[in-house]
Amino acid sequence: MTGSIKRHDSKDMIKREKIKDLLETTEFDREVTVMGWVRTFRNNQFIALNDGSCMGTIQIVVDFNNTPEQLLKRITTGAAVAVTGTIVESIGKGQRVDVKATTIEILGDSDPEKFPLQPKKHSLEFLREIAHLRFRTNTFNAVFKVRHALAFAIHKFYNERGFVYMHTPVITASDAEGAGEMFKVTTLDFDNTPRTEDGKVNYAEDFFGRATNLTVSGQLEGELAAMAFGQIYTFGPTFRAENSNTTRHLAEFWMIEPEVAFADLEDNMQLAEDMMKYVISYALENCKEEIEFLNNRLQEEEKSKPQAERSAMSLVEKLNFCLENEFERLTYTEAIRILKSSKPNQKKQFKYLIDEWGADLQSEHERYLVEKHFKKPVILTDYPADIKSFYMRQNEPDEQGRQTVAAMDILFPGIGEMIGGSQREERLERLMQRMEQMNIPQDEMWWYLDTRRFGSAPHAGFGLGFERLVLFVTGMTNIRDVIAFPRFPKNAEF
Amino acid sequence: MTGSIKRHDSKDMIKREKIKDLLETTEFDREVTVMGWVRTFRNNQFIALNDGSCMGTIQIVVDFNNTPEQLLKRITTGAAVAVTGTIVESIGKGQRVDVKATTIEILGDSDPEKFPLQPKKHSLEFLREIAHLRFRTNTFNAVFKVRHALAFAIHKFYNERGFVYMHTPVITASDAEGAGEMFKVTTLDFDNTPRTEDGKVNYAEDFFGRATNLTVSGQLEGELAAMAFGQIYTFGPTFRAENSNTTRHLAEFWMIEPEVAFADLEDNMQLAEDMMKYVISYALENCKEEIEFLNNRLQEEEKSKPQAERSAMSLVEKLNFCLENEFERLTYTEAIRILKSSKPNQKKQFKYLIDEWGADLQSEHERYLVEKHFKKPVILTDYPADIKSFYMRQNEPDEQGRQTVAAMDILFPGIGEMIGGSQREERLERLMQRMEQMNIPQDEMWWYLDTRRFGSAPHAGFGLGFERLVLFVTGMTNIRDVIAFPRFPKNAEF
Repeated sequence: MTGSIKRHDSKDMIKREKIKDLLETTEFDREVTVMGWVRTFRNNQFIALNDGSCMGTIQIVVDFNNTPEQLLKRITTGAAVAVTGTIVESIGKGQRVDVKATTIEILGDSDPEKFPLQPKKHSLEFLREIAHLRFRTNTFNAVFKVRHALAFAIHKFYNERGFVYMHTPVITASDAEGAGEMFKVTTLDFDNTPRTEDGKVNYAEDFFGRATNLTVSGQLEGELAAMAFGQIYTFGPTFRAENSNTTRHLAEFWMIEPEVAFADLEDNMQLAEDMMKYVISYALENCKEEIEFLNNRLQEEEKSKPQAERSAMSLVEKLNFCLENEFERLTYTEAIRILKSSKPNQKKQFKYLIDEWGADLQSEHERYLVEKHFKKPVILTDYPADIKSFYMRQNEPDEQGRQTVAAMDILFPGIGEMIGGSQREERLERLMQRMEQMNIPQDEMWWYLDTRRFGSAPHAGFGLGFERLVLFVTGMTNIRDVIAFPRFPKNAEF
Repeated sequence: MTGSIKRHDSKDMIKREKIKDLLETTEFDREVTVMGWVRTFRNNQFIALNDGSCMGTIQIVVDFNNTPEQLLKRITTGAAVAVTGTIVESIGKGQRVDVKATTIEILGDSDPEKFPLQPKKHSLEFLREIAHLRFRTNTFNAVFKVRHALAFAIHKFYNERGFVYMHTPVITASDAEGAGEMFKVTTLDFDNTPRTEDGKVNYAEDFFGRATNLTVSGQLEGELAAMAFGQIYTFGPTFRAENSNTTRHLAEFWMIEPEVAFADLEDNMQLAEDMMKYVISYALENCKEEIEFLNNRLQEEEKSKPQAERSAMSLVEKLNFCLENEFERLTYTEAIRILKSSKPNQKKQFKYLIDEWGADLQSEHERYLVEKHFKKPVILTDYPADIKSFYMRQNEPDEQGRQTVAAMDILFPGIGEMIGGSQREERLERLMQRMEQMNIPQDEMWWYLDTRRFGSAPHAGFGLGFERLVLFVTGMTNIRDVIAFPRFPKNAEF
């Protein structure tokens, strides 16, 4: 037994079997080749090898008497190896199958003094610093497998329903959505900036001939497409240049935005609930091993918390609870009534006390409704017009003459706002009035208004923050741990 | 029969049947509701209604004797209407089913004097100006349905093979890929730009604390993930700030970039060929109607060309030809030999004559190989190192001492380069040498080099320009017609 496999040259195919498949095989005593990264090497004899196809490792049994010491020394945590051997039923405890190695080749060494990932528990904070390597841990293997499954499930859901996947532009000249601060996109130079005669930056000389930004939402363009295809969705990156260093915000994140013609707020709520249940159920079915691991991980984490702060439900219970129960639907006005008479409001435990209709709900209020009062996902509808966007459909004023819009926010336990949406204002005059009130330039938005000029129709849509969905399904608590290379203030590493 | 359906309020579900389904129904004489946009209205009697679910229209038969004239006048091209009526077998020619209307409601008017889309052929150039409305034409309905199907097929293909979908960052501090000019992303102001003591722009005060750009490729980050999961792919937007106004380039486009550990160039070629065949075959099966329409459209277009310039194959023939034939594989060196002795080179018809090994291939050469010489997709491999990127794996020098790299470009008839990829240089020292030669800063790329420090392994990947794939499968000729809202120099409209 020596390290004698030749480095494959470009005319040979590299054949290997995935560890995921081998761990389930029933065909023993045949020759297999596996390649992966050493997790541990015990007693100069047992390699735990992982290739990323699953969280598990396969045990490689090394014939250490017949393996050169030079080679044994190079089998270190993190090293990449190719092993050919015989797959056999394991006689050891804790695994079903072993590979009895006949040849071992070191593909890439890993200096044990320098490799940052040792076979011990590392903090999530530390792993964030080495985001390029954290995928090699069980936790991040599980998180990103679940993320993958959720992304696929979203495409599958909309495809089955006949929605058209639209790629709306990332670079946009419109800043009308008003969802927050934007990043400038430019090819102009900070030195020698071209100027107009009156000394302003001359964006006519910029790449696009005008000032451009990174999109905060594909909704407005999505509406254009919905008014032709009937049903569309987007799934793409969106951006906020907000200086928020929280566990729930990113400067760059992915959003899913369906938009449906001939639909109202009721349809919109139903679509959102159906989608959430579909994708959670898909993940439970297709990521059993990963979600079980994350479930146990979370239970361990919870143990370090005081009893009172621990979650009443395990991760798996929480996910199943979502599937089995209807989301609670109530209006903003009803929610205010509940909040006003709630204990934390009466006892002045809320930081922002609720005393008037019209107040914007804070995270503490949303959490109270979802986690204490209803104990399940909640859809709040019909918010005051003044705290919502210009494009939301204006309801008839209520008995007290208060103006609301056909908006909806879906709140999830532990996450807060998961989805925000609305029926859109399809009536040209109402829309233009509202834009005027809110100082949104109508000439730049001629194309948006055109959809109301030519064959307007009721339509509705929403936006789902993809990372918040991944947070919920994985039970992770920091949004920076569910996206590969998080972007946030003062950080664009990797 | 009057326009008497009430506008649905938010407590009613809007129920409608899709025209796509109705056109295939066999259950007649039942009440149905359809909603859509009027394509034409003939003789105050026949509405051709489209709802985007398919290209086809359903014929609505209006009882014009019992319909108020005021309503009839509002049934104009582009108007959105809701029709309830009975679905019956058509007695007219050219359609199977009719809806005999009992009630008609105008959801949104369309002033026939102002609506830009008239029931006649519009030029693609004109339609580009009204990209927000062009989805309502048959051509763009077909194009974007095919685009959707191709996107879904890509996810399906990789999901079935166990690849993990990675969202690599759009905002990046790295500019090492060297794929072209980049867009700056910043929150700094052109007026009052913060400066360091020596007068340079102080990017420490920018949002991310450093200079950042829009990514030109997710490959480098993809490699990090492949070295943990084994097999990953990206599917996201990428950017080039290049001032190219061609029918093949966009400033913002979508790219698919798989990356596979324990794989070499041969595996890479096979993966690319398998993927291309899978997604083309998926589109042929799932977009029969659309591809047939595009096939006929292209044949019409071809008729306006001189005989010599017409394509020998129809669109459908071209797609099937791709499925049925193996892609031709040859090295750059072999390609140079063929090109040198080719007629257009001998007769000096090439703009750039090929006389030496080492020359970069131009579009005219690629087209000659693909369209004249081999008449099928061609995979060119093993290019001179000097015309390729730093991260490509260095081959052993050939008999004449010439240095090549394990690169591959896949060329398609009518498109040119569809895919570019390579085996990656996994050997740390070779990689660092090359980076030094090419002045690529190693300290900024510490994370990239880490994958070669800790458990390096042979790996390979490629990038597929999604819009070029859509061009090929739809037979469209301008890349601006296969993305919803194209971004190119001096244009960021919508």
